[in-house]
Amino acid sequence: MSTSLVAKLDAVFKPQSVAVVGASTKTGTVGNDLLLNLVRDKFIGKIYPVNPKADEIHGVKVYKTLGDIPDEVDLAVLIVPAKVIPGLVQESKAKGVKGLVIISAGFKESGHEGAEREKELTKLVREAGIPLIGPNCLGIINPQINLNATFAAKNAMKGSLGFISQSGALCTSVLDYAEARQIGFSKFVSFGNKADVKETDLLEYLANDPETKVIALYLEDIGDAKRFVEVASKTFWEKGKPILCLKSGRSAEGAKAVSSHTGSLAGSDAVYEAMLKQAGVQRVNSIAELFDLAALYTTQPLPKGNRLAIITNAGGPGIIATDTAIAAGLKLAKLEDSTKEKLKPPVLPEAAALNNPVDVIGDAHSDRYQAAVEVVMSDPNVDMGVILLTPQSMTDCDNCGKILPVAIKKIGKPVVAAFMGVKQVEEGVNNLVQNGVPNYAFPEDAVKSLAAATRLVETKSIAKREYVEYKDVDIAKANKIIADYLGSQTEKYLTQADCRPLFECYKLPLLKSGIAKSADEAAKIVSGIGKKVVMKVMSAEVVHKFDAGGVLLNIEGTDGAQSGYDKIYANIAKNVPGAKIDGILIEEMAEKGVEVIVGCNRDGLGPLMMFGLGGTLVELLKDVSFRLAPMWKVTAEQMVREIKAFKVLDGYRGTPKCDIDAVVDTILRMSALAVNHPEVAEFDVNPLIVHAAGKGASVADSRVMLRKPR
Amino acid sequence: MSTSLVAKLDAVFKPQSVAVVGASTKTGTVGNDLLLNLVRDKFIGKIYPVNPKADEIHGVKVYKTLGDIPDEVDLAVLIVPAKVIPGLVQESKAKGVKGLVIISAGFKESGHEGAEREKELTKLVREAGIPLIGPNCLGIINPQINLNATFAAKNAMKGSLGFISQSGALCTSVLDYAEARQIGFSKFVSFGNKADVKETDLLEYLANDPETKVIALYLEDIGDAKRFVEVASKTFWEKGKPILCLKSGRSAEGAKAVSSHTGSLAGSDAVYEAMLKQAGVQRVNSIAELFDLAALYTTQPLPKGNRLAIITNAGGPGIIATDTAIAAGLKLAKLEDSTKEKLKPPVLPEAAALNNPVDVIGDAHSDRYQAAVEVVMSDPNVDMGVILLTPQSMTDCDNCGKILPVAIKKIGKPVVAAFMGVKQVEEGVNNLVQNGVPNYAFPEDAVKSLAAATRLVETKSIAKREYVEYKDVDIAKANKIIADYLGSQTEKYLTQADCRPLFECYKLPLLKSGIAKSADEAAKIVSGIGKKVVMKVMSAEVVHKFDAGGVLLNIEGTDGAQSGYDKIYANIAKNVPGAKIDGILIEEMAEKGVEVIVGCNRDGLGPLMMFGLGGTLVELLKDVSFRLAPMWKVTAEQMVREIKAFKVLDGYRGTPKCDIDAVVDTILRMSALAVNHPEVAEFDVNPLIVHAAGKGASVADSRVMLRKPR
Repeated sequence: MSTSLVAKLDAVFKPQSVAVVGASTKTGTVGNDLLLNLVRDKFIGKIYPVNPKADEIHGVKVYKTLGDIPDEVDLAVLIVPAKVIPGLVQESKAKGVKGLVIISAGFKESGHEGAEREKELTKLVREAGIPLIGPNCLGIINPQINLNATFAAKNAMKGSLGFISQSGALCTSVLDYAEARQIGFSKFVSFGNKADVKETDLLEYLANDPETKVIALYLEDIGDAKRFVEVASKTFWEKGKPILCLKSGRSAEGAKAVSSHTGSLAGSDAVYEAMLKQAGVQRVNSIAELFDLAALYTTQPLPKGNRLAIITNAGGPGIIATDTAIAAGLKLAKLEDSTKEKLKPPVLPEAAALNNPVDVIGDAHSDRYQAAVEVVMSDPNVDMGVILLTPQSMTDCDNCGKILPVAIKKIGKPVVAAFMGVKQVEEGVNNLVQNGVPNYAFPEDAVKSLAAATRLVETKSIAKREYVEYKDVDIAKANKIIADYLGSQTEKYLTQADCRPLFECYKLPLLKSGIAKSADEAAKIVSGIGKKVVMKVMSAEVVHKFDAGGVLLNIEGTDGAQSGYDKIYANIAKNVPGAKIDGILIEEMAEKGVEVIVGCNRDGLGPLMMFGLGGTLVELLKDVSFRLAPMWKVTAEQMVREIKAFKVLDGYRGTPKCDIDAVVDTILRMSALAVNHPEVAEFDVNPLIVHAAGKGASVADSRVMLRKPR
Repeated sequence: MSTSLVAKLDAVFKPQSVAVVGASTKTGTVGNDLLLNLVRDKFIGKIYPVNPKADEIHGVKVYKTLGDIPDEVDLAVLIVPAKVIPGLVQESKAKGVKGLVIISAGFKESGHEGAEREKELTKLVREAGIPLIGPNCLGIINPQINLNATFAAKNAMKGSLGFISQSGALCTSVLDYAEARQIGFSKFVSFGNKADVKETDLLEYLANDPETKVIALYLEDIGDAKRFVEVASKTFWEKGKPILCLKSGRSAEGAKAVSSHTGSLAGSDAVYEAMLKQAGVQRVNSIAELFDLAALYTTQPLPKGNRLAIITNAGGPGIIATDTAIAAGLKLAKLEDSTKEKLKPPVLPEAAALNNPVDVIGDAHSDRYQAAVEVVMSDPNVDMGVILLTPQSMTDCDNCGKILPVAIKKIGKPVVAAFMGVKQVEEGVNNLVQNGVPNYAFPEDAVKSLAAATRLVETKSIAKREYVEYKDVDIAKANKIIADYLGSQTEKYLTQADCRPLFECYKLPLLKSGIAKSADEAAKIVSGIGKKVVMKVMSAEVVHKFDAGGVLLNIEGTDGAQSGYDKIYANIAKNVPGAKIDGILIEEMAEKGVEVIVGCNRDGLGPLMMFGLGGTLVELLKDVSFRLAPMWKVTAEQMVREIKAFKVLDGYRGTPKCDIDAVVDTILRMSALAVNHPEVAEFDVNPLIVHAAGKGASVADSRVMLRKPR
């Protein structure tokens, strides 16, 4: 699958010949601009413009039709009205074209008719076996072979960033931002409506592309969550390529805009957030952050730890950088005494601050900066560095930009700069970035980027990415139970008592229980449980069970059971006369513990598991975590540890540590339930009572909603 | 006070003549650069360089001494070694100099000796009655009279932003950033070690300066919290000038860096956060944000509401802007049908999206943008707008930059732009900003800035800023109680029972209570209370009162009281044999309610009040609010409403609304206690039980730490 995809997409990204169907003589049109880009940027293969009415455009001979081209055509770029596209796909097939990029709009994004046209197009190209990028896109760039098959006004510099974008217009700005920061690309793809080739296909292609070291994605929706997680996690953990993603449509309003803009139905952001985490993808919150991190990851090594050294020629910015570092979870490196010794005069002047932040003082020249960088960054307690420079009267900013990259390269630790200003530092910044040291306009962005790199390294360090296989679950029996409950209904709500047989199939930690239809039965059940119990009336007609005297706590012994049974009947007879009673539910009283919630909701993209502490306060503060099922064991552990209130489970203020393994096990078993049975539309175990370490957990209440999948 | 300060500082900011003492012939020195700036930037007054060894520098006649200048000297700028400064202050006094700026370092920032020198300097200038800016600063700029008395490589553009900075080096970058964004200044001050003139003096000066419309502060510490809050709140609420503040030293590590850098002792960040909120100052988190907001506030009107319109030529950026808006608390404006009607062809093409975000489509020229801006921004449901532009092949970005500011100015609502890119939009951006429309490199920053403006307007709308005067408190009696408790001790811990008489002076909502030394007394007290009570043993020797059987709940009636009394004595005799018992504390059982905490800690800057819900979870999640005492009533209300869990008090999921007025009243009474008695070093009421609306609150437990002020 993967190998064939690579081979197929090579025709798109590494063609030896490109036909531009719809090349135009009229300047300022897409058909003219795209051809111009190929010609001006000196594509190293052959270029064949196609236009029935022209002879030559931009100095290149034009052919009337694809078929007229007296050569093989690897890639055909189509810039013709949507309605003539189907015919051209047939022509392409006849010509033996190996890859298609369709720039033209007029498909899914334009409404119902366009959507039908797009379905037809997908069918056609798949029948023809030709991979298609687009339609409704800006095109693609492969700087390695000078292939600029876009109508953007700019080309991409050669480099190691693979960029995939669902927005074509954003790409035009991206090329401009990237140039200013000297960020080069391995491949640059605007994939438009993704009628055939999807974001995940492109990601897989870049994973296998030797030119690509870092991948950046701009996505508005993701079609296949499971495959995305598989491909992305392999790309990150196995191929070692960091993946950055700006996923828009975060807000409900934004998701609506995605939908009206692209015609895609976006899932809720919680799903995307979960999916990206599980895939090892680093989500960024802004375009600026995408560039900030891409600039770092494409030029610097990843840090070995989180200890930052700050070298500055001004106190204020040093403090600002310190604040940012601490807020972002970094530590200020504690310099060795020998390091401070080495910094003493004449290396730095008497007035210099030798503690981190190291202040080289306002009158520092590049040589002093260089010495400080060499000494400080060699300290074994330093994992990474940021160099701050304010342009003061003595500062030779230009020279700093030349000298420092040399010093930094030798060190083998990530170092970034914030030369602060615009015009006054322009030349210095150019020197820096051209020599592979990222510069940030402000110290805050520089430090935040380094902090993101530490988080990336932490994620990367997750070693065991394994699914737990539960051999003790009885899928067939669960299927039967579900089928019986549903019967011919499309939907069925299961109460706590209903959930029981289903949960037993998955070995969830249920409390001992039984249903008594007589006082004697009650006595038998209670003595069987051998612990204090709760007795609850089972009756659809008694709504407020507690108020009606239908619930008794702390019952023990056979006598207690019998008199409890009678008491409940008497209470109900008095308080809800005539209510039909189906029996008395008797359940073991759970040991004390911390109440948590494990829930699941089925989104278009898969079963979304939820975890949080119990209680309204947590609900109010939205302190919950989400992941998609199925998940690795480590993912379930992350779910539990990620909530802010995790300490409550981990032994806080003298309370004992809870049985976190039992929580993880429950989450994983419930994930299996969700994955194995698409009819399980929603469920909650609320609360799951978590006991002290080693003592397990108990399902104290639960509900399930079954729904026939459409 | 204020008038005299203005008059005095006018000599510094609006001098008719400036002496530069320490003007140097050597290029690249501070003494040479500063004089050059005065000359090159064409100061409209007279310039008198002073240097015993030179005749002319930068074409200006040099005088041997201050005394030699044959004219009045309004402002003297001193750039001479620290040790000769005292003599020069004397000379300045003799000459009748009216204002001083001391650039020279070698004072508090350089250690103990420097600190002593600075104290001496402060004494000298105050005796001389000459206001001093500095020492250890970059200088000052007043663009209105072309006064650039700094050694920065750049001048400031003329404008309406007053800028005050504790970091001189930061100023050099600030001038560069500001120029790039065309932000002009009314006054620009680097105030250095603030040996005489403080940040608050400068703020007060700018509050009264007609050229200043917006104020930006970079501060590392604030000396006098009370005065700062007074002056800043007047500046903001009464003079209507927005104040932005970047306060560094947020983290403990950052605060340490402030301390080693400036020699100031910074308070905890919670105090600063509280102080800035109370003062109506808008705190920013980064240098970038300072500029983002300054650019907006100096050019655009403030919004009337939070409904945003987005006009874009690309879908993706529109979605990104939408996400940012929702996350930042803005709403997407719902356009009137008549507005959409007006946008229909031929104004916008058929394919345009007429719902907000309004997509003018990739091929839009400036005329289409203009029409969209005029129509959309005139919609009564729109409070503010952002214009997004990606440079596509048809986009006439330059022209958009020219035309749109004209359209925007007519509307009278804030509108900002994000022309996305660097080189490709450079000319367009220049046109925009020169015509008074702020541009942001990315849509996220543009939208966040508008959101900040809405928050500013909300803060501004706080109408009643009044202190509550409690006439029913007995300060004298409280003083006596405190003095008695402290006696000759420097510190004294008050238990719940000890707190009682003190709290009574402040009419805090105490539960009815009494101390019984016999079973009969207990009976009398309980019948007096007339409700269920708690009985607690009073004994320093019984540490775990509950475990020892020293606490009984739900006691009622005289019989219950008597047997309870005896039972406690029996329990203690059995469980803690020989323990000395001081009596039994009997206290009314509080009605149910929500438990909250009201606390106070005394920082160097004043009594810092704290509010939060009770319980360890809240502590863990740090969901608490802080303010300095004294505070307005509205401030106490903010404290209560600001916590994330406020809904728990406000009626959540069917629970009744709590008596929020009672909480506010308690906070204010406790603030009064803290303000009136400097000996009250810390206290906690934990929990204060808040009952249903109208039913008040009850102090259920408390502690106070008294400490003799040093």
